[in-house]
Parts: sequence; C-alpha cells; structure tokens
Amino acid sequence: MQLVVIGGMAAGLSAASRARRIDPDLEILVLEKGDMVSVGACGLPYYVEGRVASPENLVTYSVEHLSRHRKIEVRTGARVAVIQHPSRHLVLAGGERIHYDKLVIATGARSKPAPVLLDCPNLFSLYSVVEARRLREYLDSARPRRAAVIGAGYIGLEAADVLHSRGLQVTVFERASTVLGRPNPGLTEVVRKALERAGIELRLEAGPVCSGETFDLAVSAAGIAPDVTLAAEAGVRLGPTGAIATDEHMETSLGGVYAAGDCAEARHIVTGRPVWIPLGTTANRMGRVAGACAAGARESFLGVAGTSAVKVAGLEVGMTGLCLEEARKEGFDAVAAAIEAPDRAKYFQAQMTRVELVAERRTGRLLGGTVTGAAAVAGRVNVIAAALTAGMRAQEFAQLDLVYTPPLAPVADPLILAAHQLRKLLD
Amino acid sequence: MQLVVIGGMAAGLSAASRARRIDPDLEILVLEKGDMVSVGACGLPYYVEGRVASPENLVTYSVEHLSRHRKIEVRTGARVAVIQHPSRHLVLAGGERIHYDKLVIATGARSKPAPVLLDCPNLFSLYSVVEARRLREYLDSARPRRAAVIGAGYIGLEAADVLHSRGLQVTVFERASTVLGRPNPGLTEVVRKALERAGIELRLEAGPVCSGETFDLAVSAAGIAPDVTLAAEAGVRLGPTGAIATDEHMETSLGGVYAAGDCAEARHIVTGRPVWIPLGTTANRMGRVAGACAAGARESFLGVAGTSAVKVAGLEVGMTGLCLEEARKEGFDAVAAAIEAPDRAKYFQAQMTRVELVAERRTGRLLGGTVTGAAAVAGRVNVIAAALTAGMRAQEFAQLDLVYTPPLAPVADPLILAAHQLRKLLD
Repeated sequence: MQLVVIGGMAAGLSAASRARRIDPDLEILVLEKGDMVSVGACGLPYYVEGRVASPENLVTYSVEHLSRHRKIEVRTGARVAVIQHPSRHLVLAGGERIHYDKLVIATGARSKPAPVLLDCPNLFSLYSVVEARRLREYLDSARPRRAAVIGAGYIGLEAADVLHSRGLQVTVFERASTVLGRPNPGLTEVVRKALERAGIELRLEAGPVCSGETFDLAVSAAGIAPDVTLAAEAGVRLGPTGAIATDEHMETSLGGVYAAGDCAEARHIVTGRPVWIPLGTTANRMGRVAGACAAGARESFLGVAGTSAVKVAGLEVGMTGLCLEEARKEGFDAVAAAIEAPDRAKYFQAQMTRVELVAERRTGRLLGGTVTGAAAVAGRVNVIAAALTAGMRAQEFAQLDLVYTPPLAPVADPLILAAHQLRKLLD
Repeated sequence: MQLVVIGGMAAGLSAASRARRIDPDLEILVLEKGDMVSVGACGLPYYVEGRVASPENLVTYSVEHLSRHRKIEVRTGARVAVIQHPSRHLVLAGGERIHYDKLVIATGARSKPAPVLLDCPNLFSLYSVVEARRLREYLDSARPRRAAVIGAGYIGLEAADVLHSRGLQVTVFERASTVLGRPNPGLTEVVRKALERAGIELRLEAGPVCSGETFDLAVSAAGIAPDVTLAAEAGVRLGPTGAIATDEHMETSLGGVYAAGDCAEARHIVTGRPVWIPLGTTANRMGRVAGACAAGARESFLGVAGTSAVKVAGLEVGMTGLCLEEARKEGFDAVAAAIEAPDRAKYFQAQMTRVELVAERRTGRLLGGTVTGAAAVAGRVNVIAAALTAGMRAQEFAQLDLVYTPPLAPVADPLILAAHQLRKLLD
C-alpha cells in the first residue's frame, strides 16, 4: 500500500505523520514542488523583520528527520503535472510516473495577482520563502524609505507592522471598507486607531494604487486563492467556495483521494456549511484527519470556526465564528453586543480590552466573537471558540466559571460582561 | 416588599444590585457588620505589598454610590444577632428589630484559628482589611527580616510572594504534601521549583511550627471556614460540606431565604454534587442568582468548576475542575496526561507551559485541567473551564479551533497537545 501526499507543508506533513502513526507499514511518499518542506509560512513576516534569522529557522521537521524517525520519504522539487485517478498514478513534470493507492492533495493556496502599481517598480509578496527572501534582501541592501502594502488582511497588516518596525514609512491600501476580511466596522475602527497611533497609515476603500505617490516598494497581500488546478483537472469536485469539496473524513469526490489544508473546503461549525478559511491550524487538523482516514482509520473533522489572530502596532486582535454582518448574511436573526473593560485588576496596569459577541436572538446561541486589546486576547478568543464548538448559549456563557486573580484577570471578566450585555438583547 | 441582605461584600452586593435590576420598587437593605463594604479582598495581599496604596482603593462601590444610583440602603457596623424566620425579622446586636420579606444570607467565611506558633509573637492574617492594615503597618515600621507563612493555599502563596517582594526572607509551611489545596504532585513540583528559584522556601508536610527557628512575623493562611452560625441557629439546613445547602435558585431550606458566596454550597459542574469552593467570582455569580430569585425572577445557578489562579514567584498557576486524584476520589475511572510545550512561536521568546488534562477513561469526558507557565495561563484554563461546562470530551477538545499567530500562540497549542496525549489513554 502506498500513500502519496502532494504538498510538503502543514497539511501534507500532518497527513503523512498521522498516517504513519495509524499504519507503521504503509509506504508514504510526500511530493513537494518547492525546495523546502515544513516551513511555518506564518513566520515569514518575522523573517523579513529580522527577528527570525533564516527561513530554515521556520522549518519544523527536516526531510532527514521525516525519513529517519517517521519513515516518510519526502521528495522536494517534485512538481506533479497530472493525477490519473482511473489508473491510480501521478505524472511528475519530468515525466516520471508514480503509483498511489491512497492520495492526499495538499497543494495549498497561491497569491492572487497583484493590482497594477504605478510609480512602484519593486513589488513583493510574502507567501513564499523565495518572495520573503527577496524582500528581506531588498530591504537590507536598498534601504528604502516608503512602502505601500496592498491589502489589510492578516498578511498585509503583519507586513505593515514589520516594515514599520524596520523604520519604513508605511501606507496600507485596502479595497474594502473594513480590515482583516471581517465586515465589522467596530473592529476596523479599533485597528485603524492602533495603526494611526503607531504612525502607520490605513486607507480604506482605496482601490488601484496610487498614481502621483511615490513608494520605494510595495508588498502585495491582496489575498490568496486555493490551488486546485491539479485536482480539478483530475475530476475532483470543487465546492461552492471554489476549493476542493470534502466530506467529514476529508475525502473528495474521488474515492481514496483526500484533500486538506488551504486547497480544501471544510464545514463551518456555526453555519454547518462548507467554507474556505485558509489557516495553519486548520490545515494541521484537516491533514491529521485526511492522513488517518487514508491510512484506514475512521476519524472525522469537526469543522472550522475561523479562529484567528494577529498582533499589529501593539494591538492584539482575535476573532472566531461570525461577526454580526456575516451572521445576518448567513440568514441568522442575530444580535451583537460590545463592551470595553479592564483586562485585569486596575492596580496591575490594567488596559482596556474590547469584546464583541454575536448570538441568535431567539435561542441565544453564540455565533461568534471578536476581541481586541493589549494582552490576553488569544485566551479570550479561544474561550469563545470552545463555546461555539459546544453550541453554547449566551445564557450559559455568562455563567462560565472563569479565572479571577488580580495580576491576570479582573473579577468580572470582559467575556462575562459582554455576555451580560448580549443577554439584554435576546428574546 | 423588603429584601434584606446580610453581608456587604461580593455576594451580598451582587444580590442587592441584581434584585434592583429585576424590581425597581423593591426596598433593599444591606447589613454589613464591618465598617467597609464592597472590598475586593483578593487585593489585600497587594495592599500589603504596597502596590495598592489604601484599602479604599479596593472598594468597587461606595455606600453613597449604592444609595444614590441603585437605591440600595447600606448600613455598616450592623451586626445581625438573630434571624427569626417564623416572624420574618432580624435582631441586630444592639437590639433593633428589622423586618424582611425576602432574605439573602451572604455572611462569607472566617479564617480558621492559626496553629500555635512558637518563637513568633507577631501573628497576622490576610482575610480582613483590619488584619491587612495591621500587617502593612508592622512591615513599614518594624522592618522585619524573616517571615513564616502558614499554609500554601492561594492566600499563603500570595502572602509569601508579596513579603518576598518587600525584601523579607520567607518560609512557607504547609501541612499537606501538596500545594494550593489540590492533591496534585505534578503541580506541586512546578510550584516548588518556582518558589525555590525565587528564593522562597517551601516546607511540605510541615505541621506545627517551628521551635528553634526565629521568625520576626508569621502570616496565618491556614484556611477558611464558612460563616454559618447565624443561619444554622435560625434552622437553615447545612449541606454535607458544612456550608449552607442551596438549590439551583440559591434558595435555602427556609422558603424566601437565599444564601450566596463563601457561606454557601453550590453544585459542582463536573460531579453534580454540592461543593464548597469559596472564590470571588463564584460569590458574584451566586449573588446575582440569589438576588434575581429573591426579587421574583426565576434564574438558575449553573454551578461551579472551581476555576482559580494565582501568580507567585513569576509563575502563573491556574486550575479548573478536578485533578486526577480528586477525580478518582469522586469515583471516576479517570486518566490524566501532562505535556510541556512552548507557549508561542519560539522566535517570540516562547517559554514552556505545562498543561495537565484529566478525563473519564471510558467516555473521554473532560473532568479538569491544571496549567502553569510564565504567561497566558488564565486564557488556557478558561478554555478548559468552558469545555467542562459544555461536558466536552477529549476527542472534541483535541479538535478545538484555537488561535495561532506567532507572537501570541504556537501552531500547536499546548491545550491541543495535551488533549492528543490524553486521547492515547482513553478506551
């Protein structure tokens, strides 16, 4: 039995590792088109910043480690050209044929084409090691002064933050009226203020850039799209989001072919509908399930909540589930409440944190939350994520037994205060 | 209709405030035997430390505020001598009779008598403003050098920490073989090491103190007991823990008489059994339900998980639900797994955090957790608390969609790693 995994990043290697755990005798081959595997791409902005010395420091497992300790064969520079499912084989770009019994497609995502930039010959992106290296070398050698960042999603804001911390004057251009891909005006306002305080300019509803202004460089972070060409050409069904459709075992429409990571859809735990939310954590979890099932186990993927966070300009931002606007678009009769409250006892240098919770009006079931503040944001978002997974209602959430100790948390946690506020809006 | 509340601290004032919200016309009288109300007693160690200038800074609401903005009459120095429930009246220590229609008993807890201390004339405790003031004045004036702390519970460890930060040489004596009232050897080992690194001595299984050694002062933190004398004399039924028995509406065995806070039992959300876990957060939540129900609403208290935390010697310690030893004592066929893992991406000065999770072997249902580390402990404990409230199993917990972003959390959260480890032990 041979399992072949296309893609040597988070999802692919999670699948391979989990398959090895399930079946010690399986032959496992990972094909990666690039020259590195297991790169924590979320760290690339910090490599550009200089905090991370080399992209090699972002590698979790080396090819040699995977081979020696997990009996997983990894081939880099191996670009798959064709999947021939009827005869269960792949063809590499060089013509080599490789047989598979089970297949995991973890081809990831690719960056969308950057919009045309006037007055700016130096255009970079941050989606690959190659690009990140090019950007850092440029920063080190050319000593530029003014940077444009295209897109105010995670990568865009992280790019803005690291360029700013390297001393550049940064302007972020975002086509939408809100940031971080979340149509949430309250969140956008908090982020805008933090960027402003730090001296980073944010221009919303700012489309094609930017005649008349001169930037030494631009970083394009205009979004990514699932890399599904190979799968689609092989007859794998795509879902409504354009990513690969999967069932709860991460199996595609072709039996024995699984998909995981940024190329695949998954069920949203709040709506129950397929969504495409490309994130590293989700990629790992999808990969584990795909690998387990490909190796013969019967595991299910419980779905994604879209939990994510970013730290920018000293502000921690986290979110999970749906914001009010998203919930309404999904057909929920939803209400939202936002509070600001100290994040610990006042005499421990408390700072204000903002919590926004969304619930279904009739039942009180929580649908999502957004948290911003100077500290402890990840923990609070994670509590909301756990509540979403459990289908908890605001009524129970308001009675959660949470930590209180003056150095770490106030007696009335901002989460609880937000839930009390929310309860007033429920039927 | 008159609602009388005995006790002007967290539980009593939460009850009074919530009752006011429910019924704007209710007459509400709070009787407090001391001369201050609404003191956040958990802040007293930090007053002794000097971080908090005065006990008045620990007051959340003044008597005047409660009167003016909430129409709640508060009498300080009002010690209730007798509850005469058949005729619905109280008698104060001075002989005054006060009628009530509904009564909330929030008499709190009192410190257990300190063990006899040899060689130490200066004995203090930290349970009241009066005691804390006396200790701080002594520290300011006498400039002592060596302190004994009796008891390694929260208050004991906080006392040790603040005395140490004031430059004293501190020894903590604990009768049990474990700390923080949790029979958990792993936790005790982590705390012991942190104290040791900071230069605070911890002596376990160290009973009566301590002939032959000379301490300038001793702080007794040997535990507290529910203050139930008044209630018991009035015929209110006590529960198996010795605290006042309550139903889910916080009503006692006497109709129309409610109890809340450190004098009352509540249902444990994991065991379903009555427990006595005196904590400020729990007191607030119990008080809210007692006040609501006393004012005619129909609310229920969902129970306590025993979530709590302390920061000592730079170490954050948090716990919720049951540890393995407690779970087994409660009759569960329980298993536990502990892991140590980085609390964020390595290049953001990650430090190791330890997560221990406990589950029922057969079902995988989570029963409790303990977290220690340099940072982000409260958030991780709170996620476990939410999972306990939801009755979540380790299988689901391992798939929680948690935050990942390098500055705040690692791609594989320690919570998830602990859950994976735990799953291997399940049937």
